Amino acid sequence: MESKKFLLQEKDIPEAWYNVMAEMPNKPKPMLSPATGEPLKAEDLFPLFTEEASRQEFNTTDKWIEIPDEVREMYRIWRPTPLVRARGLEKALDTPAHIYFKNESVSPVGSHKLNSAIAQAYYAKKQGVTNITTETGAGQWGAALSMAAKHFGLELAVYMVKVSYHQKPYRRSIMQTYGAEVIASPSMSTKAGKKIITEHPNYQGSLGTAISEAVELAMSTPNCKYTLGSVLNHVALHQTVIGLEAEKQMEMAGEYPDIVIGCFGGGSNFSGISFPFIRHNFSGERSTRFIAAEPASCPKLTRGVLRYDFGDEAGYTPLIPMYTLGHNFSPANIHAGGLRYHGAGAVVSQLRNDGMIEAVDIPQLETFAAATLFARSEGIIPAPESSHAIATAIREANKAKEEGREKVILFNLSGHGLIDMAAYDQYIAGDLMNYEVSDEEVTANTVGLKEV
Amino acid sequence: MESKKFLLQEKDIPEAWYNVMAEMPNKPKPMLSPATGEPLKAEDLFPLFTEEASRQEFNTTDKWIEIPDEVREMYRIWRPTPLVRARGLEKALDTPAHIYFKNESVSPVGSHKLNSAIAQAYYAKKQGVTNITTETGAGQWGAALSMAAKHFGLELAVYMVKVSYHQKPYRRSIMQTYGAEVIASPSMSTKAGKKIITEHPNYQGSLGTAISEAVELAMSTPNCKYTLGSVLNHVALHQTVIGLEAEKQMEMAGEYPDIVIGCFGGGSNFSGISFPFIRHNFSGERSTRFIAAEPASCPKLTRGVLRYDFGDEAGYTPLIPMYTLGHNFSPANIHAGGLRYHGAGAVVSQLRNDGMIEAVDIPQLETFAAATLFARSEGIIPAPESSHAIATAIREANKAKEEGREKVILFNLSGHGLIDMAAYDQYIAGDLMNYEVSDEEVTANTVGLKEV
Repeated sequence: MESKKFLLQEKDIPEAWYNVMAEMPNKPKPMLSPATGEPLKAEDLFPLFTEEASRQEFNTTDKWIEIPDEVREMYRIWRPTPLVRARGLEKALDTPAHIYFKNESVSPVGSHKLNSAIAQAYYAKKQGVTNITTETGAGQWGAALSMAAKHFGLELAVYMVKVSYHQKPYRRSIMQTYGAEVIASPSMSTKAGKKIITEHPNYQGSLGTAISEAVELAMSTPNCKYTLGSVLNHVALHQTVIGLEAEKQMEMAGEYPDIVIGCFGGGSNFSGISFPFIRHNFSGERSTRFIAAEPASCPKLTRGVLRYDFGDEAGYTPLIPMYTLGHNFSPANIHAGGLRYHGAGAVVSQLRNDGMIEAVDIPQLETFAAATLFARSEGIIPAPESSHAIATAIREANKAKEEGREKVILFNLSGHGLIDMAAYDQYIAGDLMNYEVSDEEVTANTVGLKEV
Repeated sequence: MESKKFLLQEKDIPEAWYNVMAEMPNKPKPMLSPATGEPLKAEDLFPLFTEEASRQEFNTTDKWIEIPDEVREMYRIWRPTPLVRARGLEKALDTPAHIYFKNESVSPVGSHKLNSAIAQAYYAKKQGVTNITTETGAGQWGAALSMAAKHFGLELAVYMVKVSYHQKPYRRSIMQTYGAEVIASPSMSTKAGKKIITEHPNYQGSLGTAISEAVELAMSTPNCKYTLGSVLNHVALHQTVIGLEAEKQMEMAGEYPDIVIGCFGGGSNFSGISFPFIRHNFSGERSTRFIAAEPASCPKLTRGVLRYDFGDEAGYTPLIPMYTLGHNFSPANIHAGGLRYHGAGAVVSQLRNDGMIEAVDIPQLETFAAATLFARSEGIIPAPESSHAIATAIREANKAKEEGREKVILFNLSGHGLIDMAAYDQYIAGDLMNYEVSDEEVTANTVGLKEV
């Protein structure tokens, strides 16, 4: 019988990340200093990020950036990850489409986030940094960074959005088991946290607030750097191992994707699966469609506007050229916590503006229906975030059926949902609902932001 | 740098299971009918189990039993699993030992249980059975069978030990997401359940009671069979894919294990990793040590007696020749729920009696200390069950250090602990304790049982 899983060997783990900025027809605009309005350079980020991450952030010239041996060695714990032909799902949909997924859920923390966590922790260690900070929403990024920090002997403090801290105690425990300090955000440990707690005593937190706290702690602690799990160019860069492996594996399968899909929060897994394929669109060799799958409750690429905006709520970060719903936008409390972020990274925003990628927004109930069908046909319970990609793949497979075309669809399964079962419980019980964002809300939250 | 992970290709998934009974110097004694005291034959089990499982249960002649194509096809979802050289753990222990683990946690349900769940569901489907039943403690087996049942289009009812049903809601949700019906045991849906509920209204359940309920439901439902996730010979048989793959992978690593370790509940994962290696002890070619790692609170192989005993509390099952603590033994509520079973399978019991394998019992706190060290040095958070194997590997690695010997240790990582984080929370908070079993308790629970 024909194989449905395409496996690489350790030697096939990429030796370099693909830097899409080097080949983009239009480069993304640089970040701006909120104080002066002037474009920033790599050195301007040194106080906040590691030097290597800062340089990567601004590197628009090198097409390939070498993956350090120490990082590749850690990748070997779970990489290369499998590419799977989803024959069970195809059968359930009775579609002529060929559906493939890259299975990033096999990492020890259950998601793709480890690809960048390891790189960022390594650069911190190499630079002699002793402490790092970050924020986490649902906890996928925090769990990944906790494992990486422990491996490189770094102390890590994670600000976890308060509502998740209480609702997702397992992810908190995972971070603590790896040895990280986890603080519910907003907290009294920072000025940003104190301000919001005293003004709104019952505030349950947001990613924007948690970023403010983590940035403040890093800036006020000796030998401490801040790390981020999405949005930024260097994070997207690290995630390209996903697409580079998938490219080889699609070759093993003897096919090339007509459509590539990733769920979309700040852009890390979407970029990871897409960028290595999009380069063949740049060259004119291919005309693959790339679809970012957003939640209907937080649709920055489908409903937001391209503006210079802050990455955090308190306004500590540089101004980033991004499709945004406004840094004070408060997304509904959907279970795909990793997608509850107001903005898209600069590179993806530029590609969107240039018509190189598409975006769709999916209601929460459709994502859980897709997730359940996937679990029952492919055996893997997906993360609520990844379920947005699955739902989009199903939409496209159904279209292929209507059109009677044998389309090749590839999506990234960014993580499993085994730590999100409370969400499935609520879905089964009929307690979940859809959320919409009104045009008025977008306008109100983005008014006055500087155009890109 | 030398590789630390040894990967096979799909073509290396074994084509046959290894049937240790065919080569054992002393065969295990057959099960007895509780009614007549007479030895049972395969046909006697047909009302309860599928015919193929029943035949495998009594097959002491065929060394290799072919794995059906449909089962191998499903194995391909996650098999072959990696073998990993635990260099991080070795370094943390500063030991000259070479520690390897077979990583069965990469299955979509997070444990080795799927190896037999798929086979049993397939045989049911092939025989035209429409409904199956089972019991589950912590939920690893129930989750695996739920996935397998859905794949083969079978209806599944799972009796889940009541205390776990409430304490481990995520595993319940996983089963429901795959489409299984989950009933907290004891329940009012069976005579056995009603009896115990009316006599002890607050009884929180046990595996023995849940087995009684699942057996009763199967026996009283048309076209319905019962399935079990451990203890029985055919279950151990299906798990030998673990050791057969590991054997090839140790060859890739250029080593052969001096010691093979598996945690021990009823025997499924211990048998799976051990049997393919123990055959080289039978032939005199090797003298590997095999260690079953039990919880100190449920130590049937280290502290129990070899007797004919029931597999369940109500006494519905045949009498099995087993090392047992008595079928009414009530193990302490440790977090390794999968190890809370009173008896050992007939084959392992015979091997233990013949001095072919060893057993150790490990206190709960030692298992969590080992698990935390493993998580921080190897990056994978282990299941509380598997942590018994890790603790034993650490003991042996420390001995190797004392002796200054480069021993080769192999253990089976039967599952991950991502759905057991509440247990880690309690460990971190200092709320866990050790439990001991007194000699008096063992004697009181096993008095009067027929000697083997």
